[in-house]
Amino acid sequence: MSNNLLAGKKGIIFGALDENSIAWKTAERVHEEGGQIVLTNAPIAMRMGQINQLAEKTGSQIIPADATKLEDLENLVDQAMEILGGKLDFVLHSIGMSVNVRKGKHYTESNYDWTHKGWDVSALSFHKTMQVLYKKDAMNEWGSIVALTYMAAQRVFPDYNDMADNKAYLESIARSFGYFFGRDKKVRVNTISQSPTPTTAGQGVKGFDGFIAYAEKMSPLGNATAMDCANYTVAMFSDLTKRVTLQNLYNDGGFSNMGVSDAVMDAFVDSQ
Amino acid sequence: MSNNLLAGKKGIIFGALDENSIAWKTAERVHEEGGQIVLTNAPIAMRMGQINQLAEKTGSQIIPADATKLEDLENLVDQAMEILGGKLDFVLHSIGMSVNVRKGKHYTESNYDWTHKGWDVSALSFHKTMQVLYKKDAMNEWGSIVALTYMAAQRVFPDYNDMADNKAYLESIARSFGYFFGRDKKVRVNTISQSPTPTTAGQGVKGFDGFIAYAEKMSPLGNATAMDCANYTVAMFSDLTKRVTLQNLYNDGGFSNMGVSDAVMDAFVDSQ
Amino acid sequence: MSNNLLAGKKGIIFGALDENSIAWKTAERVHEEGGQIVLTNAPIAMRMGQINQLAEKTGSQIIPADATKLEDLENLVDQAMEILGGKLDFVLHSIGMSVNVRKGKHYTESNYDWTHKGWDVSALSFHKTMQVLYKKDAMNEWGSIVALTYMAAQRVFPDYNDMADNKAYLESIARSFGYFFGRDKKVRVNTISQSPTPTTAGQGVKGFDGFIAYAEKMSPLGNATAMDCANYTVAMFSDLTKRVTLQNLYNDGGFSNMGVSDAVMDAFVDSQ
Amino acid sequence: MSNNLLAGKKGIIFGALDENSIAWKTAERVHEEGGQIVLTNAPIAMRMGQINQLAEKTGSQIIPADATKLEDLENLVDQAMEILGGKLDFVLHSIGMSVNVRKGKHYTESNYDWTHKGWDVSALSFHKTMQVLYKKDAMNEWGSIVALTYMAAQRVFPDYNDMADNKAYLESIARSFGYFFGRDKKVRVNTISQSPTPTTAGQGVKGFDGFIAYAEKMSPLGNATAMDCANYTVAMFSDLTKRVTLQNLYNDGGFSNMGVSDAVMDAFVDSQ
Repeated sequence: MSNNLLAGKKGIIFGALDENSIAWKTAERVHEEGGQIVLTNAPIAMRMGQINQLAEKTGSQIIPADATKLEDLENLVDQAMEILGGKLDFVLHSIGMSVNVRKGKHYTESNYDWTHKGWDVSALSFHKTMQVLYKKDAMNEWGSIVALTYMAAQRVFPDYNDMADNKAYLESIARSFGYFFGRDKKVRVNTISQSPTPTTAGQGVKGFDGFIAYAEKMSPLGNATAMDCANYTVAMFSDLTKRVTLQNLYNDGGFSNMGVSDAVMDAFVDSQ
Repeated sequence: MSNNLLAGKKGIIFGALDENSIAWKTAERVHEEGGQIVLTNAPIAMRMGQINQLAEKTGSQIIPADATKLEDLENLVDQAMEILGGKLDFVLHSIGMSVNVRKGKHYTESNYDWTHKGWDVSALSFHKTMQVLYKKDAMNEWGSIVALTYMAAQRVFPDYNDMADNKAYLESIARSFGYFFGRDKKVRVNTISQSPTPTTAGQGVKGFDGFIAYAEKMSPLGNATAMDCANYTVAMFSDLTKRVTLQNLYNDGGFSNMGVSDAVMDAFVDSQ
Repeated sequence: MSNNLLAGKKGIIFGALDENSIAWKTAERVHEEGGQIVLTNAPIAMRMGQINQLAEKTGSQIIPADATKLEDLENLVDQAMEILGGKLDFVLHSIGMSVNVRKGKHYTESNYDWTHKGWDVSALSFHKTMQVLYKKDAMNEWGSIVALTYMAAQRVFPDYNDMADNKAYLESIARSFGYFFGRDKKVRVNTISQSPTPTTAGQGVKGFDGFIAYAEKMSPLGNATAMDCANYTVAMFSDLTKRVTLQNLYNDGGFSNMGVSDAVMDAFVDSQ
Repeated sequence: MSNNLLAGKKGIIFGALDENSIAWKTAERVHEEGGQIVLTNAPIAMRMGQINQLAEKTGSQIIPADATKLEDLENLVDQAMEILGGKLDFVLHSIGMSVNVRKGKHYTESNYDWTHKGWDVSALSFHKTMQVLYKKDAMNEWGSIVALTYMAAQRVFPDYNDMADNKAYLESIARSFGYFFGRDKKVRVNTISQSPTPTTAGQGVKGFDGFIAYAEKMSPLGNATAMDCANYTVAMFSDLTKRVTLQNLYNDGGFSNMGVSDAVMDAFVDSQ
C-alpha cells in the first residue's frame, strides 16, 4: 500500500542490518510512502549485512557511521544533507547492543567495561546523534526523530540484562533533548516501544522464542510485527502527528497495559 | 491535504457540536481521507449546534442518540450499518459534560446527583457504546475505537472538577473493554489525551483562557489544536497503527512529560 | 511488635468484616501502635461479620454507616469526634463491591444499574467521606487518609470486571480531593495498591486462587499479605510520611514493575 | 522523636557531606531509631565535609570509598560487616554528580567524557554497590536498599541536564537488580524521589532557588524537607514496608501528580 504520506520528506535511517530488521522494513515503507532516505549503519555491522540490496531497492545511498563517534555522525549528517539536497525531516535511531548479553554475563555479575560499551552504543549514541543534528541545524521545522525502545525500560524482564537500563537512559534522552529540539527547532522526539520482534539482533537474548510466545498470548492483539512498527514509524514521521512529542509510544498489541490475559492465566493453571 | 488513508473505511463520529469541536474537525478530515461517516450527537446538543452543515459538507447522515440510553445506541448502530452498508471500521467518542462544572459547584461541595449524571454522560456512555458495538458484532476486524480524554485523569488541574474522575473512569473502560474487543474481535481501543482546546464545550471551565496560555508556554511544541487532534485520530483510524491498543496517547505538544519549561519558570520568577 | 508509632493519634477505620479483612488487621496494628479507633461498616455487612470481637480487642466503639449516604457519614464523623475527643488524624477507606461480579455478569454484558451501585459503593463513597470530613473540618493538620485499591486500575485483569474502573475512579478522587485537602487542611491522601489478598470479599472473583498463585510467582518478594498491608498503612498514618500525598503506593512484592518473572516464564514454557 | 523502629538493624549510609545533606539527616534519624551505621563517602568529598562530627554524634565509624571502584566497595562492605558484627539490614545510596552541570555545559553541548563520569558516579555506582552486596551475600533477609532520585527521571526540568538521564538509569537499576535481590535474597530495593532540597550539592543547579519556590507553590503540602526524606527512609528501612520493592516513591508534597496548582496558576496570570 502507499498513500504518499511522506512525499517530499527526507531523512536518515540507522540500523538496517538485514531484511528481518525493523529499520529495514521502515526504510522500505518510507520509500513506498514517497520519502527519500540515506541509510547508515556501523561499518562492522555493514560487513555482516545485506544493506546494499536495501539501498538498491529504495534508491538510497549508504553512509557508514559508528554512532558512538561524533566525527562519523558529523560526516553522516553533512553528507546526507548534500545527497538529499537540504535539511532533514525524519531520523530513525534503531541501535542497540549489550556486550554483557552477547557474552552471556549475568546481570548480577556485570562486566562494567562491557556495560559502558553497551550504554555508549545503545543509549548515548542517541544523544550524540541529536547533538550533531541540533548543532548543524539539520532538521526542518516539524521534523520527527524516533528511537526504538523496549518496555524493559519500565518493567523487569530478567534476561534483558543491562539493555533494560540502556533503554531507560535512551528514553530519558528523548525527553531531555526533545524539550530543546521542540522549543528551539519545532522538532518532535519520541520513542516507540515495540513488542519483542524476531530480528537477527534479538536472537542473542536467552529464551527469546519462549518469551515471544508468552508476549503473543498476553497481548489482546498479539505481538506487533516489524512491519507494524514500520507503519507506526511512518505515522510518526508524517504530518498526522505534528504535536506529539516527548512520548514513549507502545506498539505492542496491548501488552503494556495487561496485568494478565486469560490465555496466559490458563497456561499458568495448566502448568501447576 | 489528503492521502486517501481511510479509503473504504466506515464509522461513527459522536459529539460534533459546531466548527470548534474536535469531532467536527475529525469528521472533516476523515471525509477528506476517504472515510464514510454517520454523525451523531445528543438530541439536545443538536438543537444548539450546526451539525447539518457538517453533514452536508461530508455527505453524511445524522442519527440522533442520547449516548446514555442503550436503545438509542442500538438504533444508532443498526442504522449506521444500514446506511454505510456493512460493519464499521472506526468510532470516535467525543462526549463530556459535568453538571457540577456547569453550575459552578466546587469539587469539595459536589452535588452527587450531578456527579452521577456527569459520570453517566462522560464515562459510562463509552462502555454502553462499546457494549452495543460488541454485542451486535458491528466492528470489522482491525477496526479502531478512539475516545477523547484529558490529562486531568492523571494529574490535578483544580478547576477540572469531577471531569478528572470521569476521564480516569473513561480511560479505564478503554483498557477493560479494549482487552475483550481485541481478544474477541481484533479491534483496537485507545484514548487520545488532548491539549486544552478552545472548543465551545471547554468554555465552561473557569479560568480556561489563562490555562490555555499556561499550557502553551509549558509545552515545547505549544498546544495541540483541534486540527492536530483530528489528524492524530486519522492516524489511529488508519492501518498504520493496527497493533496499538489499550493506550492513552498524549497529543499535547509535550506537556505531559514536562516538569517545568523555561518559559513557565521565567513567568513564575517575574511574578515573585 | 509495637513501637508506639501512633501514640495519641485518633481515627476511623472502614470495612472490617472479619479477621481476614485488611481493615481488621489494620485496626489491630493501629491499636498496638497506640492509636485510638472508631470502627465502622455498612449495617448489612455488620450483620454478617464479627466486628464486635474486633471492637472488644481494640477497645473501640462501632458506628454503623452506609458509606453511600451523606447523613450516615455525617453522623459517623460527629460521633467519632465525640467518642475520640477531638479531630481525627487518620482514616482508612477499605470498601469495595461490584454487583456485576457478585452476580457473575460478564464485563461485556454489564447491567448498568449494578455498575452504578458498585461505583457508588466502591468509589464515590470515598468522595463522600472526604467531603464530610472536609466540611466539618474534622481532620487535624498532617492527618492521613488512605484508601485501598488494586492495580486493575492501571492494567487489565479480565475477571476484575467493573471493579477495575471503580478503582481508577477511586484513585482519581484521591488526587483530586487530595489537592484541596492538602492545600487547605495540610492533610495527605493516598491509596495503597495491594497484592491480591485472600479476604472474604475477594472470594467472589472467579479463579481467584489461581490468580493468587500467579501473582505469588510473578512477585520477587511474593504477595503482600493483609498484615503487610496493615503495616504499610501504619507507616502511612505515622509522622514518617508527612509529605507523601496524592500517591498510589504499590504494596505487592514488586508485581507492578514486573514484565515477567523467571518462575512465571518457566511455568508458561512447561505448559506449551 | 524515637520509636526504636530500627532497633537491632545495621547498615551503610553513603553520601553524608554536611548537615544539609539528606544522608546526614538520615544517619541521625536512623541512629535515633536504634539503628547502627557505617558511614561512607568518596575520599575527596570527605576532605570537604564534616563527616567526623556525624560519626561522633551517631557513634559510627567512617570507611572512605570511591563508589565507582569495586575494590573500594568490597573493602567497605567487608569492613562494615566486621564493625557491625554481621550482615546488613539497610543501605542508603545518596550519590550524584554531573560534571556537565558543575562546569555549566548546556545539555545540547554535552562533553561526553563528562557525561560518562557523571553516569558512572551517579548511576552505575548503584549497580556496583549492589553487585558487591549480592556477591558477598552481605544483606540479611528482608533487608532494604534505598537510593535517592529525582523526578527529572520522568519529566523535563531543563536545568537538570544529564542528571535526568542518570536518575532514569539509576531507577532502572533499582528495578533490574531489585528483581534478583528480591528473588534470591528476599531484599527489597526502592528509590525515593525527593522534592528539590537545598543541600550543598543542589547549589550547583542554575536557578535553583527560583525552582524551589516554584515547587513549593506547586505542591499541595509544600516541598518535602531533608528531614522528611530521612523519616521516609526510616519507614522504608523498617519492617513496616517489607513487601514494597522495585518502586519509585515520591516524597514531594504531591508535586508529581500535579498538573497545575492554583498558586502557580495565579502567579502565571499575574506575570502576563
